[in-house]
Amino acid sequence: MGERSSGLTAEAALNIEGEVGRVVEEVKDLQDSVTTHISKTSKEEQSLRERAISLDSSIHRLHSLLYSLLSHKLLDPKLGEKLDEDLQRARCIMVDGDAASFLPGKAQGGFLRLFLGPINVRASRKDIRLKVKEEYNGYRDKTALLFLVFPSALLILRSWVWSGCLPAFPVQLYQAWLLFLYTGLALRENILRVNGSDIRPWWIYHHYCAMIMALVSLTWEIKGQPDCAQKQRGVQLFLQWAMMQGVSMLLQNRYQRQRLYTRIALGKAKRMDVVWGETSGVDGQLWLLCPILFVLQGFEAYVGLLLLRTVFVRLVFEWQVIVCGILLVLMAVGNFANTVQTLMVKSRFKAKMRSKSKQEVE
Amino acid sequence: MGERSSGLTAEAALNIEGEVGRVVEEVKDLQDSVTTHISKTSKEEQSLRERAISLDSSIHRLHSLLYSLLSHKLLDPKLGEKLDEDLQRARCIMVDGDAASFLPGKAQGGFLRLFLGPINVRASRKDIRLKVKEEYNGYRDKTALLFLVFPSALLILRSWVWSGCLPAFPVQLYQAWLLFLYTGLALRENILRVNGSDIRPWWIYHHYCAMIMALVSLTWEIKGQPDCAQKQRGVQLFLQWAMMQGVSMLLQNRYQRQRLYTRIALGKAKRMDVVWGETSGVDGQLWLLCPILFVLQGFEAYVGLLLLRTVFVRLVFEWQVIVCGILLVLMAVGNFANTVQTLMVKSRFKAKMRSKSKQEVE
Repeated sequence: MGERSSGLTAEAALNIEGEVGRVVEEVKDLQDSVTTHISKTSKEEQSLRERAISLDSSIHRLHSLLYSLLSHKLLDPKLGEKLDEDLQRARCIMVDGDAASFLPGKAQGGFLRLFLGPINVRASRKDIRLKVKEEYNGYRDKTALLFLVFPSALLILRSWVWSGCLPAFPVQLYQAWLLFLYTGLALRENILRVNGSDIRPWWIYHHYCAMIMALVSLTWEIKGQPDCAQKQRGVQLFLQWAMMQGVSMLLQNRYQRQRLYTRIALGKAKRMDVVWGETSGVDGQLWLLCPILFVLQGFEAYVGLLLLRTVFVRLVFEWQVIVCGILLVLMAVGNFANTVQTLMVKSRFKAKMRSKSKQEVE
Repeated sequence: MGERSSGLTAEAALNIEGEVGRVVEEVKDLQDSVTTHISKTSKEEQSLRERAISLDSSIHRLHSLLYSLLSHKLLDPKLGEKLDEDLQRARCIMVDGDAASFLPGKAQGGFLRLFLGPINVRASRKDIRLKVKEEYNGYRDKTALLFLVFPSALLILRSWVWSGCLPAFPVQLYQAWLLFLYTGLALRENILRVNGSDIRPWWIYHHYCAMIMALVSLTWEIKGQPDCAQKQRGVQLFLQWAMMQGVSMLLQNRYQRQRLYTRIALGKAKRMDVVWGETSGVDGQLWLLCPILFVLQGFEAYVGLLLLRTVFVRLVFEWQVIVCGILLVLMAVGNFANTVQTLMVKSRFKAKMRSKSKQEVE
């Protein structure tokens, strides 16, 4: 019995000793392979990075040389146009293709550093970058629906159930949700920017303003009876504005999504074609979107001015009223200026394309 | 003159045409190299990942086999201990070395997804992961100082300048800062977790609770004169607790930092050594830290219970009072339980090490 047991021990021990030794060896091997892999990969990436940067600067140099030659009439315009297109195409491959991950990205702004620290949020592959953008659009869609539903519900309940007087808790819940929403949007948009999105900086600043406003509105006491219809006038206007915001967000999302899909579908087509497709497919929607955006911006400024007026007329010195009023006016003006600029860029581009296709027909 | 000009044009055009052509070719080459590089790298990484996963599961399997052999007395205890140490060392190389990036990380939790979307925040290299941890410690240091200074300043100004009555704005500014601070900490700790930190989940939940409390306290009206000393009793207690929190954070940071430095300095030493060094170097501080932590937790629970008492005694039905009271008690209990658990793990480990070194002496 003793012998059999010790035999078993010896056998099992021998087996396990060998197995452990093998595993330890394999772990050391793996460690070596990983070290080799990392050093090799980072060397290769360094060389790709250098090539990408030098090519990028060559493209820029040739582009400005081309323009100065053309402006001094030292180059045949037809040749100039062809070369310009070639350079555009090269630039497009650099920016939209996989090589883009080896160009130095936009620096991660202070906002991301403030919340996340020094972690890198740049996706190294193009398909992941596109996925991030699609998820962002999906997120916007979901929030736009809530943006519509949440304030509508509050306003409906206000007149049907709460007899004209909003209770504090649901409004504060809504304001807390707004704060969370705008923080999430600002973080995601900063991440998109790092990943090469050409989102206008204003829209990110706009979300910073909205974050501050949501935070300020949380500290703002929701006054109850008596006479709450008048005291809550500001909140009510704000909710109405938020409802309109929801509609415009839904429309904007549709528009943006269509642009992205066109871009993905056209894939490696020339940049010009991509933009052509982009604009032509959604022209109708743009003409629906713009008036709504302008009305919304007007209403935003109106609410802001109403808030500021209460300070001068009724001499209410709550600091929240002043800050919210100023922020609303600021956002309205900024939104208006940026919408107009976007439209101007689009129409200038379209005029150029039209004259070009006319030339080609001739 | 005409001839000279056209000569110049031809020459410049010739040059630029050639250069543009060359750049376009180079861009295509770069694009090809990048594509090759990416597909090769991801194939290699896939194979490294498979090796790492299979080795990891082998280590786990052998570990439980070893324990069952030892518990059935089928293996010589001395040999068992040696094999156990070998396996520990292998596991340590896997977890602390570069290979760690090829083991499946902890899934990115819902919190990060909620704020950032699907972007990957896992650093692929070990040195970057350590840098992230160091930055986190630096961030905690800075915030701990503010944690001490901010509420102290409010309390001093309250008695010296504001004659016992805190104005709303500075307190709300402080609460907004708390909200920002806790959001940042919760995001960073989630990022650390994804990067392989063994931070206890409770400390992250604790920061979620603190976030909710900061948010709730923002909606809490700071009542002014008359009789504000009594009305602001809760705020005052909260500020005192926050001051103590600042001191304990500074001490905790010192302790954590020392642990990290020991770990980095010992580098590729055996895991046991690392933990030995970790504990021995900072024992003295732990005995200073623990009583402070316990006093702080007691005070936290006390403030929470005081808040809850006001509801029953004075029949104040502000929902903020109830929520803040419950959260404070919850955090105190959770903190206490987790501190005790950490201490028990440490002392159990030390007992084991002591008996082992005694064995070795014998």
